[in-house]
Amino acid sequence: MRTQGMDALFSPESVAVIGASGDPTRIGGRPVDYLKRYGFAGAIYPINPKREVVQGLKAYPSIGAVPGPVDLAIIAMPASLAVQAVQDCALKGVRGVVIFSSGFAEMDAEGAALQAKIADIAREAGMRVVGPNCLGIANIRKNLFGTFTTSIEQALPQAGGVSIVSQSGAFGSFCLQLAVHRGIGINLWATTGNSSDVDFADSLAYCAEDPNTKVIMGYLEGATDRDRFLDALSQARDLGKPVVMMKVGRSEVGADAAQSHTASLAGSDAIYDAALRQYGVYRADSVDDMLDATYACAAGGSFMNSGRTGLVTVSGGVGVLMADEAEAQGLDVAPLPESAQAKLKKALPFAGVRNPVDVTAQMVNQMDLLEMNMDVLFGEGDYDAAIIFMSGVGLIKSLNDQIRIILEKIRAKYPGRPMVFCSLTEPEDRKLYEDSGFMVFDEPTRAVRALATLRFFGDAFRNHETPDPLPEIAVIPDLPSTMVNEIEAKEILAKTGLGIVREVLAKTPAEAAVAAQDIGFPIVVKIASPDILHKSDIGGVVLNLTSKEAVQEAAKSVLAKAADAMPDAKIDGIVVAQQAAPGLEAILGVTRDPLFGPVVMFGLGGVLVEALGDVAFRIAPFGKDEAHRMIEEIHGKKLLGAFRGAAARDVDAVAEALSRLSVFAAAHPETLDSIDINPLIVGEVGKGVVAADAVIIPVAK
Amino acid sequence: MRTQGMDALFSPESVAVIGASGDPTRIGGRPVDYLKRYGFAGAIYPINPKREVVQGLKAYPSIGAVPGPVDLAIIAMPASLAVQAVQDCALKGVRGVVIFSSGFAEMDAEGAALQAKIADIAREAGMRVVGPNCLGIANIRKNLFGTFTTSIEQALPQAGGVSIVSQSGAFGSFCLQLAVHRGIGINLWATTGNSSDVDFADSLAYCAEDPNTKVIMGYLEGATDRDRFLDALSQARDLGKPVVMMKVGRSEVGADAAQSHTASLAGSDAIYDAALRQYGVYRADSVDDMLDATYACAAGGSFMNSGRTGLVTVSGGVGVLMADEAEAQGLDVAPLPESAQAKLKKALPFAGVRNPVDVTAQMVNQMDLLEMNMDVLFGEGDYDAAIIFMSGVGLIKSLNDQIRIILEKIRAKYPGRPMVFCSLTEPEDRKLYEDSGFMVFDEPTRAVRALATLRFFGDAFRNHETPDPLPEIAVIPDLPSTMVNEIEAKEILAKTGLGIVREVLAKTPAEAAVAAQDIGFPIVVKIASPDILHKSDIGGVVLNLTSKEAVQEAAKSVLAKAADAMPDAKIDGIVVAQQAAPGLEAILGVTRDPLFGPVVMFGLGGVLVEALGDVAFRIAPFGKDEAHRMIEEIHGKKLLGAFRGAAARDVDAVAEALSRLSVFAAAHPETLDSIDINPLIVGEVGKGVVAADAVIIPVAK
Repeated sequence: MRTQGMDALFSPESVAVIGASGDPTRIGGRPVDYLKRYGFAGAIYPINPKREVVQGLKAYPSIGAVPGPVDLAIIAMPASLAVQAVQDCALKGVRGVVIFSSGFAEMDAEGAALQAKIADIAREAGMRVVGPNCLGIANIRKNLFGTFTTSIEQALPQAGGVSIVSQSGAFGSFCLQLAVHRGIGINLWATTGNSSDVDFADSLAYCAEDPNTKVIMGYLEGATDRDRFLDALSQARDLGKPVVMMKVGRSEVGADAAQSHTASLAGSDAIYDAALRQYGVYRADSVDDMLDATYACAAGGSFMNSGRTGLVTVSGGVGVLMADEAEAQGLDVAPLPESAQAKLKKALPFAGVRNPVDVTAQMVNQMDLLEMNMDVLFGEGDYDAAIIFMSGVGLIKSLNDQIRIILEKIRAKYPGRPMVFCSLTEPEDRKLYEDSGFMVFDEPTRAVRALATLRFFGDAFRNHETPDPLPEIAVIPDLPSTMVNEIEAKEILAKTGLGIVREVLAKTPAEAAVAAQDIGFPIVVKIASPDILHKSDIGGVVLNLTSKEAVQEAAKSVLAKAADAMPDAKIDGIVVAQQAAPGLEAILGVTRDPLFGPVVMFGLGGVLVEALGDVAFRIAPFGKDEAHRMIEEIHGKKLLGAFRGAAARDVDAVAEALSRLSVFAAAHPETLDSIDINPLIVGEVGKGVVAADAVIIPVAK
Repeated sequence: MRTQGMDALFSPESVAVIGASGDPTRIGGRPVDYLKRYGFAGAIYPINPKREVVQGLKAYPSIGAVPGPVDLAIIAMPASLAVQAVQDCALKGVRGVVIFSSGFAEMDAEGAALQAKIADIAREAGMRVVGPNCLGIANIRKNLFGTFTTSIEQALPQAGGVSIVSQSGAFGSFCLQLAVHRGIGINLWATTGNSSDVDFADSLAYCAEDPNTKVIMGYLEGATDRDRFLDALSQARDLGKPVVMMKVGRSEVGADAAQSHTASLAGSDAIYDAALRQYGVYRADSVDDMLDATYACAAGGSFMNSGRTGLVTVSGGVGVLMADEAEAQGLDVAPLPESAQAKLKKALPFAGVRNPVDVTAQMVNQMDLLEMNMDVLFGEGDYDAAIIFMSGVGLIKSLNDQIRIILEKIRAKYPGRPMVFCSLTEPEDRKLYEDSGFMVFDEPTRAVRALATLRFFGDAFRNHETPDPLPEIAVIPDLPSTMVNEIEAKEILAKTGLGIVREVLAKTPAEAAVAAQDIGFPIVVKIASPDILHKSDIGGVVLNLTSKEAVQEAAKSVLAKAADAMPDAKIDGIVVAQQAAPGLEAILGVTRDPLFGPVVMFGLGGVLVEALGDVAFRIAPFGKDEAHRMIEEIHGKKLLGAFRGAAARDVDAVAEALSRLSVFAAAHPETLDSIDINPLIVGEVGKGVVAADAVIIPVAK
């Protein structure tokens, strides 16, 4: 268990500060100051060989001189002295260490060596280490501030259910301040710095296990260990703890030159994006979004079961605005049943009653309208959540209290349905709503997005309640150690259960003609060579051949073209293949991500992939349900349905193929470079899919 | 001039309140209270036949009894009495009227008749009327509050350069409150209600002309008069006044069943979206976005000349986040020149110096670093704007003041470059920055978007500085009054200067074969019928014909297929057409929008249009520059450039064709229903475009 021993970091009974300063503004003085000032209940031991007393506390010349046990030691010393300090901690039996000092792996090779030494000492001693080069950690509930961030002096966080894990100290401390400004209560806070021992994944897993953590907010620049990272995400998801992640680096274009066509589409940010979604993580696209999503999870009370959203408003215009945004966010602003609409219309003839329900300014004079409307909304409309937009009414104390009492009644009558009170409010009134279990936003679009977040997590958690087994493949075929021609490639894929077209490798044009006769027309002729990846580009493919003569002619032509364009290519012969019945063309691919290993890609062919990069990714392996969700992400998915005269396509067969491919890819994480199935012909519903061409590239040795 | 006489509304010397109440909480009491309380300098005349004194002011039994002239009358009476009140105002010589009362056109036909009467009276008397069914107007600079919105009691707006025009009273009053909360100073405020006389466009034009208005914020549900609406937008743009618009109704799917293929893609919200962009209006997608964009224009000092953006940060992570967002918003985070980077690196060896420039927390201890960095950024980096991200440092008074003084120096040295101070701040410190010409945001993503807004307007205003003449078409061809076949349709379009393929209408298969010989192979054969729009769907098109025999055969076939599929269709014969050299296929279309009239559409063919709806619209007519901007909006535009082996396409010829089509369409606003040119074959650069098929549909009589 990678979280073992981390209690010493976040719930110590005693804390020593090595390099403690008498000046509370200095880095070594701040943790002493904060621990005292904010009321840490355990023992505080300043370590400073030059002083008897530090900030009013008895100081010790060394960690070894401390009389009692020390759970956590904070090291605030230059890098050159930090290694010795860690060694002293190990001797003392300290269980957790936080190292502020910079000048390690982030600096140079010498620093990296020092850092490695620290990791060795810690491992041997069974001691957990956060840092070096970090801003420290905090446990707000325990008033434990093992940090030198001055941000808490500006705004001290209140205890609550949100834990923050940040790879960046500056970002982590910014988040802490923002959380205070937003009234979001914090539980644990960890900045992981150089991650010599405890890293982002460990901290995330620890927060997931921690009973006081309800929501996790993460800032990530890059994970280091695939399995621990994904395990931590799964753990949080399986425990029903939402993870809201800010992963920066969207604009970084993957630098590695890509060999295969598939690889050229796989920027590593796109892979992160897919992985986070696959593991049920909400990826925020702005700091506001991160805070809003976190707030919604912390204050929302429950997640949404479906997208059915009720909207109540005092402004028809804002009602439309919210409905617009709800649709954009995939929520369902379904109309109220006719009977319910009639009931509302009777009570307020000029009101909008369809949903959004516009109670108009009249509500202010006739407050029972709100209760009646809300009761009908939840009682007859079967909505999973509601937003009550009240413009600036929340600023009027007397009205505000009346509204809250009504909404509390409704909440009691219809529990488990997230409700947003959307209005300008004074902070103290906002707090009253929040204490009663409502989310409060002053901006209607953000209110809608908050519900969309609760729906995202509702879906993510529900998706993983039912098993999504991996397909069974009798014997997973070996990977060839060198490039193979397309016939061999397809044979390998066929063993995994993928459909392939009927085809034969002919040595000569005459053999090709005979083979064609045997397979049946129409026929496709292609050059067979492990060295020629883009056969069409050199004239190495001829379609629509309907006679033996034409096949023989075409075979001659592709041999000539290949010899002309790539005289050094190894030529295995000519592929004579059954021309698949016309269908929709898709592309399936596998690439090898430096972090995540084998990744499966799906796209529909042609311009969608080439000009728009309309593709979806998943980390291998995955089941068919996940494959269906993957297919759903494609912008051009309309083409898979019944569309402009064409029949609906066999989407289930595509999902099966993706899932099988993912199992095959995952079985060869180190040796498979890429697979490119292009095109996969997708037949009508029930007719399955066939790979018409395939390339498998092993990792070069 | 539609704004004539509106000064009486917004700058009256005297105001009468008809239906004035002694109770300042009643609708008829509030304007009297607000005018008094907030210090309106002119005369206030309460009109109330039952009282001598209203709220301490001498009251008059009727508007006619007021001794002096009355510029503005506010009517707060039931609809049944309002018409008489308007009549009395006209007799008295009142110049402007605001009618709060509801129960008019928004209610029923009777109400609509009353409203028409009011409009008649006003027109005859030369009196301007706002409302009925509105929340009124305000001129903050003059303490004129001709409104009953209680929102101003919660938060009184400060005078400033932003004017607000809202079709919705509730939304307008919400905006006013939000503006106060954001510290945005307001100039004029108008809610237009039922718009019996003064409407959204008039109010917008008035704000554009008003010298104290710097920025216009609009809330629009739907414009009523194309020309006045577009004229008002042009006027604002030509005067360099940014218009930030919230136009709701995005999710409303156009209800009209669409006849032609093109029309089915033209939802009316898409047309609004295009029209606003075409006229240089920033369309906000949320209330925050609306406020942020407005704030940026009001506080930014100037617009951006290009997208070159410098980023300075105390957090590397936030630097990456801002760079991500900048790229997403089309800003250019270009690197500093090498020499400048070296200079910065020398001053702070562990800093990021490329851009974003990471001054790290070290800056706090070494404040001159900031000045040096900023000086190098603007002096050597040639950026048009900069964001300075300071996390929570802005909350530390002493540091905050130091930073501001440094930034003020930089600002003086490099004027005309928008600068954002991005940090948590206390409101009073924020104000100091704003007074010095900086924008202040606490959220880095929003800071980036604010600059993108300033770039949007910079581009929009610059685009319209240079003329974009309409192409000259010798004689604009008449529109046929009934459906014509495709040959006739193309002939009409050819007269406007559009390229068309060489083709002939043959009466019989034999004639077709002869014609084909004359035109030259390869040939396309198509059924010619004004009744068959989707010829391919019925097998009415045969491509790639390379002999007379094949043409004759194909002609027979399409005739047979047409007779089979649509036995009642009028058949004109067979189109025998030169098969255009292979090129990229595009779709050009014209539809008739209920508000905007003829609208031109552009898309690239195939799945881009069919499955993704990847199309762009423009209101006709427009010049070639605008057409180029239109083409740039297509997601698949990559296909027009040199792409995967294909040569770059003749984009200029496409722009020319779009512009010419727009002139033709604009010449027939009432009689042209739609045009569908599909496909337009786009040749390589310099090779032009040809329409391979066209349908023109006149409005049914």
